[in-house]
Amino acid sequence: MSDDARQGPGIGRDEYVLRPIGRVESPLLDRASAPKQGDEGSPDAWLVFEPDVADGLRDLAVGTDVLVLTWLDRADRDVLSVHPRGDARTRVRGVFDTRSPDRPNPIGLHRVHITTIDGLRMGVRDLEALDGTPIVDVKPVLGGIGER
Amino acid sequence: MSDDARQGPGIGRDEYVLRPIGRVESPLLDRASAPKQGDEGSPDAWLVFEPDVADGLRDLAVGTDVLVLTWLDRADRDVLSVHPRGDARTRVRGVFDTRSPDRPNPIGLHRVHITTIDGLRMGVRDLEALDGTPIVDVKPVLGGIGER
Repeated sequence: MSDDARQGPGIGRDEYVLRPIGRVESPLLDRASAPKQGDEGSPDAWLVFEPDVADGLRDLAVGTDVLVLTWLDRADRDVLSVHPRGDARTRVRGVFDTRSPDRPNPIGLHRVHITTIDGLRMGVRDLEALDGTPIVDVKPVLGGIGER
Repeated sequence: MSDDARQGPGIGRDEYVLRPIGRVESPLLDRASAPKQGDEGSPDAWLVFEPDVADGLRDLAVGTDVLVLTWLDRADRDVLSVHPRGDARTRVRGVFDTRSPDRPNPIGLHRVHITTIDGLRMGVRDLEALDGTPIVDVKPVLGGIGER
């Protein structure tokens, strides 16, 4: 939607506001040093949640995998095509057929393994998000229909 | 482009704006009639994209599965615990251990199968989102590390 279409001050009719429920703490400080996917050599990281979502977290358990959704706040939202994995030898592809962080709504989707839970802090493996990245949702990994 | 650059009045320092890239067209009109997950009897549906994201879509292909992220605009964002699958016989759980649409940031995550592509309209199977639901992102399903 163009800026012209935004209505009055603040949020336009067709826009939605994400409010982070926490932040990532990670030794990864910039995109150049981050792996492309979580299971390609990510360091251990922490999810640090806001106190007001504590009730929503109480059933998460050490030793399980969960999906973490983030807002990739250092991404470029104007990008629609990229060289996949940043490799100039690959052919340019539309961003919706890639996992590039650069895209109109840069929502990161990460499958992580919970190693520790300490109040509002959760230690995880396999998270490639940068330090400070806002967390916007956590979801269970779905098993087969019989396990839901 | 930084998010700081676009904070108008109305947007807090720690909030982010989603701009839909399209809408769902579906015979599903309300939550009571929708299946809980896409592969539990969803009708065929259409993803109808905005013209300004066409370049990002060009590599999506009929016969493949993709992940569609939506904004579940009829959800209740104040909910932190629910009876899973709306069944009062189940014990109450924290929303982050469920796939309930009711949660602080109601982002829907749907694995769908592309059956048709006609310009900006894409026919899909296994989508349980309601008619009119905003689409915010599309991502490929990741295979093993060797296929990336």
